[in-house]
Amino acid sequence: MVVILKNNATEEQIENIKNHLAQYGFQIHESRGVQKTILGAIGVQPDFDTRKIRILDGVAEVYRVTAPFKQASRDFKSDDTIIKIKDVEIGGNKLAMMAGPCSIESEEQIFKLADIVAESGAKILRGGAFKPRTSPYSFQGLGEEGLKLMRAAADANNLLMITEVMQISQIEVIEKYTDIFQLGARNMQNFALLKELGNTRTPVMIKRGLSATIEEWLMSAEYVLANGNPNVILCERGIRTFETYTRNTFDLSAIPVVHKRSHLPVIADPSHATGLRDQVAPMARAAVAAGADGLMIEIHHDPENALSDGPQALLPDTFLDLVNELRAIAHAIHRDI
Amino acid sequence: MVVILKNNATEEQIENIKNHLAQYGFQIHESRGVQKTILGAIGVQPDFDTRKIRILDGVAEVYRVTAPFKQASRDFKSDDTIIKIKDVEIGGNKLAMMAGPCSIESEEQIFKLADIVAESGAKILRGGAFKPRTSPYSFQGLGEEGLKLMRAAADANNLLMITEVMQISQIEVIEKYTDIFQLGARNMQNFALLKELGNTRTPVMIKRGLSATIEEWLMSAEYVLANGNPNVILCERGIRTFETYTRNTFDLSAIPVVHKRSHLPVIADPSHATGLRDQVAPMARAAVAAGADGLMIEIHHDPENALSDGPQALLPDTFLDLVNELRAIAHAIHRDI
Amino acid sequence: MVVILKNNATEEQIENIKNHLAQYGFQIHESRGVQKTILGAIGVQPDFDTRKIRILDGVAEVYRVTAPFKQASRDFKSDDTIIKIKDVEIGGNKLAMMAGPCSIESEEQIFKLADIVAESGAKILRGGAFKPRTSPYSFQGLGEEGLKLMRAAADANNLLMITEVMQISQIEVIEKYTDIFQLGARNMQNFALLKELGNTRTPVMIKRGLSATIEEWLMSAEYVLANGNPNVILCERGIRTFETYTRNTFDLSAIPVVHKRSHLPVIADPSHATGLRDQVAPMARAAVAAGADGLMIEIHHDPENALSDGPQALLPDTFLDLVNELRAIAHAIHRDI
Amino acid sequence: MVVILKNNATEEQIENIKNHLAQYGFQIHESRGVQKTILGAIGVQPDFDTRKIRILDGVAEVYRVTAPFKQASRDFKSDDTIIKIKDVEIGGNKLAMMAGPCSIESEEQIFKLADIVAESGAKILRGGAFKPRTSPYSFQGLGEEGLKLMRAAADANNLLMITEVMQISQIEVIEKYTDIFQLGARNMQNFALLKELGNTRTPVMIKRGLSATIEEWLMSAEYVLANGNPNVILCERGIRTFETYTRNTFDLSAIPVVHKRSHLPVIADPSHATGLRDQVAPMARAAVAAGADGLMIEIHHDPENALSDGPQALLPDTFLDLVNELRAIAHAIHRDI
Repeated sequence: MVVILKNNATEEQIENIKNHLAQYGFQIHESRGVQKTILGAIGVQPDFDTRKIRILDGVAEVYRVTAPFKQASRDFKSDDTIIKIKDVEIGGNKLAMMAGPCSIESEEQIFKLADIVAESGAKILRGGAFKPRTSPYSFQGLGEEGLKLMRAAADANNLLMITEVMQISQIEVIEKYTDIFQLGARNMQNFALLKELGNTRTPVMIKRGLSATIEEWLMSAEYVLANGNPNVILCERGIRTFETYTRNTFDLSAIPVVHKRSHLPVIADPSHATGLRDQVAPMARAAVAAGADGLMIEIHHDPENALSDGPQALLPDTFLDLVNELRAIAHAIHRDI
Repeated sequence: MVVILKNNATEEQIENIKNHLAQYGFQIHESRGVQKTILGAIGVQPDFDTRKIRILDGVAEVYRVTAPFKQASRDFKSDDTIIKIKDVEIGGNKLAMMAGPCSIESEEQIFKLADIVAESGAKILRGGAFKPRTSPYSFQGLGEEGLKLMRAAADANNLLMITEVMQISQIEVIEKYTDIFQLGARNMQNFALLKELGNTRTPVMIKRGLSATIEEWLMSAEYVLANGNPNVILCERGIRTFETYTRNTFDLSAIPVVHKRSHLPVIADPSHATGLRDQVAPMARAAVAAGADGLMIEIHHDPENALSDGPQALLPDTFLDLVNELRAIAHAIHRDI
Repeated sequence: MVVILKNNATEEQIENIKNHLAQYGFQIHESRGVQKTILGAIGVQPDFDTRKIRILDGVAEVYRVTAPFKQASRDFKSDDTIIKIKDVEIGGNKLAMMAGPCSIESEEQIFKLADIVAESGAKILRGGAFKPRTSPYSFQGLGEEGLKLMRAAADANNLLMITEVMQISQIEVIEKYTDIFQLGARNMQNFALLKELGNTRTPVMIKRGLSATIEEWLMSAEYVLANGNPNVILCERGIRTFETYTRNTFDLSAIPVVHKRSHLPVIADPSHATGLRDQVAPMARAAVAAGADGLMIEIHHDPENALSDGPQALLPDTFLDLVNELRAIAHAIHRDI
Repeated sequence: MVVILKNNATEEQIENIKNHLAQYGFQIHESRGVQKTILGAIGVQPDFDTRKIRILDGVAEVYRVTAPFKQASRDFKSDDTIIKIKDVEIGGNKLAMMAGPCSIESEEQIFKLADIVAESGAKILRGGAFKPRTSPYSFQGLGEEGLKLMRAAADANNLLMITEVMQISQIEVIEKYTDIFQLGARNMQNFALLKELGNTRTPVMIKRGLSATIEEWLMSAEYVLANGNPNVILCERGIRTFETYTRNTFDLSAIPVVHKRSHLPVIADPSHATGLRDQVAPMARAAVAAGADGLMIEIHHDPENALSDGPQALLPDTFLDLVNELRAIAHAIHRDI
């Protein structure tokens, strides 16, 4: 922590500030310039509330110098984390492709789409059985029946599966079926749920909250890591901005920034970021070029009758063509899909 | 729903759009102008995904015309909701004052502060026993032991109590002690938790999410109302903006807007909104003047040693003076505290 | 400036960083902790681009410790600035009330409204002669003819006047008529215009940009002050947030924050902040309670036929009643109108 | 315009609303559903203030149905605009590459960098002679002397040049030298300057304002087009979000959205969007993949001693390598550089 004193701070005030720092367990280094005095407060206390110092008389500003996350940082682990699930790697040179419907709707639907996913060369099937909906009046998912259908469809096509967990009581049943838990954007700071997911060893993909900073996102990863589960994947899915012509603003700048600060893999989800089918393809291309470690894309063979998010689902043929284009872009930056 | 067609939409496209609307159960009214054709799609479907129409060829824009919330709206109930708990009313002409520490720390602490709350004339004691913390390394609350202490302190001073619930499994134990559940900002869209709170009849105060629109906030209220619990209170506690000189931006404009759209009472929390003691008083004054139905204020007799949020807590004397000032402002707008 | 080094920074990197700091003219204080090394770089260079250090190998973070504004800060001048224009003071204990139409439309209109302003006890007439419009197809104002009419109406009622300047070439003509220049929100960072206004001695009221931080707003004030004009007034008029139920979010938290950081007076404009007549009164009340040094309110005797912003204008009677209410709130916080 | 009435609107209120619409020149189509009545108000009035209707009794919501811009829209002109300057095209299949220093600093510097630009195959030299700076104490540019040096360097390498205009009085002198005017983000809503640029025929590149919506950006383009200058280029350069780990958030989703709504070409500027050298390359790659019609990139041969924005400038060799990578990505999406 660095404490900048006011130009007119009195010696008495400075003494009081130093006493407080010492009492809170910090070692103090003092730098006096002509106009500014700076106190360096040394000692690792990642959860220290810096406002305790900021409100003391004579203090102008206080800066925290240690990132509040530890295990999620590059300082803690300098090599990229590669998560291996069966024969699939997430975080390596080869991009992890995840695709499938928004919601599991029927046996026929999920088998048909799992076929397409396998045909594209993607290795991971996505699909929701428990759906978080902003309206209490909307379709809420098939529940465990959906999980069973999805597992069967994944197995029949030699795919992994990923599905969303919304509350602690669902962890046990979902874990029986899934390879990866997905934590939704609105639950990114559901700390109770994060802790419980930290107690499992099943990989967890944490979607970035709609208005979360990258630091907050990494703090959510820290909750899982700190409870003992090292298998954390991040997923950028668009943030809220003032723009009304798109549903969200796909924050691709987050990808190189996360790669610099953290060793965790980052997946990009252009379907939720844009919300409209015709914008998924350009944003998927851009995500690959920006360095994403994988993509999550929604597809549907009959989007007009999809029970949720049909308008953002790609048709199977469009999806197959897109994957080929993405492969060409990946090659241009010396990666593969 | 109103569908605006493109200037160059063909008759075939228009026919296709109308067929889709009919199939989705809407009745259609067509208005043709020189440049624009507008289709009015009549029929109440609050959860209809308007993107289903937006992606059809020939469509320029689609607007929903029914608010997505029903029971929370003034249309549904035109009189102000007044929630009566024992002899206290929330939502009437008299402002509801809630005060107390951020966290319950000890028997001595909570009894000392409950005394101050009663002395000020406030009727509701606040305090946290289960704490949501952005860092997994921070103090997480006293749990049920804290609830017991708080209930005793409230009873000894003839006060109601309000405390935060963070997850479904806590509802049962907290309900044994509290008069009002508080739902935190980060859980505003924890739909599973909202549903369960809707199954109780204990009043629920929903804090506005950090980046939530007023419509989303009212949708969260709708989740509780739609499940059968009519006792919902809203709480404005600051939103995230670009400003870095304050922790949050206290959105007082939300108060008259909510009063226009909804019949539910709105409490204002200047302590969390500003995060620093010296800004609490001016913002508390402004909240009363803006028409808030009550205030929630954090106080502590020894803020330097508080286990959480000490820097935003008012000292007892400052608080007692402030309540007197607030009373004068309330009188100036013909209300009372 | 404070430079936080990476945990694994090498001695060679540290040497290189220190050489750069020395070369840029800073004096260096080094603090080594067990995990963190901090370099204090002492020396006043308010416009130093800290990224020059941030990109060096071995650097984790860099913080500026001197606010980028000087003359606008409380450090530079600890007493409140009070601007005296004829017998009116802006920034003192008595609130400065500014009122009038959005645009000057005719002699009859401006005289009628100046009468109302005088009747309310307000001392300053507002009105636009050159209008900034987002659409090139909208009414652009009466120009110099409007200024003449406004001056006459102000003089007839013993009022000061304030009117907007949009470009450098208008300064000369507007200065012949006005007592105060208004700089619009969209021009807050029109640095060329700010400089020229700094060359006059006529007071300048700087509206906060729609997405400006308080620091940027004070930097715009600094442009005027640094060029020699000490008569700067700030005006909060709402910021852009995600909310769609209101036009802007009135940032009343900015008022106590500005008062803490700067000696300049702050006016609040609830008319532009809310954009709708029925929200002006509660927000005007809240602004007084929050500590604003004055208000700017739009009024019109025939708002349905106003040439601009009619929907946010108060009718004369509503305005007269409101001023009485505001006076009661001002008295409650020991100020006057 | 579409007017949604309140459920409980009286016949008298409806009559009054219809009278107002008629008086404002609209033709009315009425649709009555069981719960909702909708009035379609037909008639082209792009600058009509919809709040005039919104404040009438009985009105629930009002939606504008005509985009406020005309000449900038795809409805007005369905083919992509291609701007030809000498032998260079902007907006066609081949991407327009613009590169050069932030500021022109000396003859040696600008000639050295123009050489690099030409070597890369780019056709347009960028550089600032008049600099907008947030601090009044920073380097403000070489002025006309800089323009002369830049013109000579461009001519010597058979390049076009683009440079920023900050105020009306600079238009004449800059037009003597430049091929393209650049309008900075902070001037995007400087309507007086936009109008004057509309009176020239020199191409104008309009940078998106830091918090501007796409609609506002296109309205600024409309100002130039409506005054007679059809040669408008748009430039995405990052928007402000809550993120603090990057300077701005590069909004690549804006590229496909603008291409859908407008016929104007869109350039992407990853240097200003990210503000740090090591993030320029991934974002440049992503911009090409997202469909940008060109890029603007800052380069410097000695960034440590650059007079402005050195930390975001690429070194010549890095730039030359990057252009080769970008070319491979362009080929993958069937375009060229």
